[in-house]
Amino acid sequence: MYTIYTFPTPNGIKVPIALEELNLEYKLHPVNIRQGGQREADFVAVNPAGKVPVLIDENTTGDRFTLTESAAILVFLAEKHGKLLPTEPIDRAQVFEQLFFHASGLSPAFGQSGYFQKLASEPMPLAIARFHGEAKRTLGLLDSTLAQRAYVAGDDYSIADIAHFGWLWRRAFAGVEFDNAPNVARWYESIAARPAVLSAISKVETLAA
Amino acid sequence: MYTIYTFPTPNGIKVPIALEELNLEYKLHPVNIRQGGQREADFVAVNPAGKVPVLIDENTTGDRFTLTESAAILVFLAEKHGKLLPTEPIDRAQVFEQLFFHASGLSPAFGQSGYFQKLASEPMPLAIARFHGEAKRTLGLLDSTLAQRAYVAGDDYSIADIAHFGWLWRRAFAGVEFDNAPNVARWYESIAARPAVLSAISKVETLAA
Repeated sequence: MYTIYTFPTPNGIKVPIALEELNLEYKLHPVNIRQGGQREADFVAVNPAGKVPVLIDENTTGDRFTLTESAAILVFLAEKHGKLLPTEPIDRAQVFEQLFFHASGLSPAFGQSGYFQKLASEPMPLAIARFHGEAKRTLGLLDSTLAQRAYVAGDDYSIADIAHFGWLWRRAFAGVEFDNAPNVARWYESIAARPAVLSAISKVETLAA
Repeated sequence: MYTIYTFPTPNGIKVPIALEELNLEYKLHPVNIRQGGQREADFVAVNPAGKVPVLIDENTTGDRFTLTESAAILVFLAEKHGKLLPTEPIDRAQVFEQLFFHASGLSPAFGQSGYFQKLASEPMPLAIARFHGEAKRTLGLLDSTLAQRAYVAGDDYSIADIAHFGWLWRRAFAGVEFDNAPNVARWYESIAARPAVLSAISKVETLAA
């Protein structure tokens, strides 16, 4: 059985979507980010980095295996269950290219764009311009990619789509819209309509209710 | 034959290190970041994201295959050549956990810490505090990991060590030292002394000479 420590955040939605797509059973354990739950001692004992999501896998060996980093969990699940990650080397490399573009590019830009616009204790216009600009730039790169492909890494839906979906689902925090990103808009609608995605969102949103 | 578009930057050193560790032949193609080479039309045609490194692989299929994102290139090379990435699921997951911790955590923190301390057009003390603090926090997390392991993802040297090495090699830019990270210091010395690492640094530094 899998247990996921999570909350309805950009990173927190990804693993439940993958588990739904893979038709696996799982338990959700809320970590209320709005109330500082990521800094409480019982959670820091699970993940010293103080971040959701965390996967606890009690199937693999009989031992409890704890894994952090949403994209690492997506790779682990895809490899273990043989879906959502191609085996052909070039197709596979393009999935990893998008996973790392998300992790190192789009995701930090969206996160900092939202932080400096909405949470910082004083206005810093140059920092807002830097990160909001980078959020729009990375969205534009994704739009160019999706002008040529049905899914972010090629012809098939993969864990790279699940990774990108997290922040695009929470784009309002970053102050980003799809006005100049028609290909992202088309792709987003198709992902958001998938039964597994709807089911995951429904379940994860109850954690914040 | 592999061609690498790169420069002696935190991300730019990683792929040459992996190629040296794998004993592969490669050509280096400089992209002079200090002179804005990443924004020149001929390079943007290769990588629209305007980032080094880029791998051009003319072996795989006869077609030219272009791959961006340093960590995606590390995964591609490790899988293709069967080294530096374990096959056992849990050992493997821990390599991906560190690759994504680097890409989404330590690397953006180090990069922004350096930007706001050294490059920003006006001083923003709160932004410096935010990112310098996050750089030190992520270094502390890595130090805790290395208190328990010889290498960042376990008992064996892997592409996760190569990924982390990039920013730790360029830690002065981020304003970070190893004073409170003795385990990182011990690990860094062992990585920096590897013949493949010395050889890659020597070759890549000539690109900036």
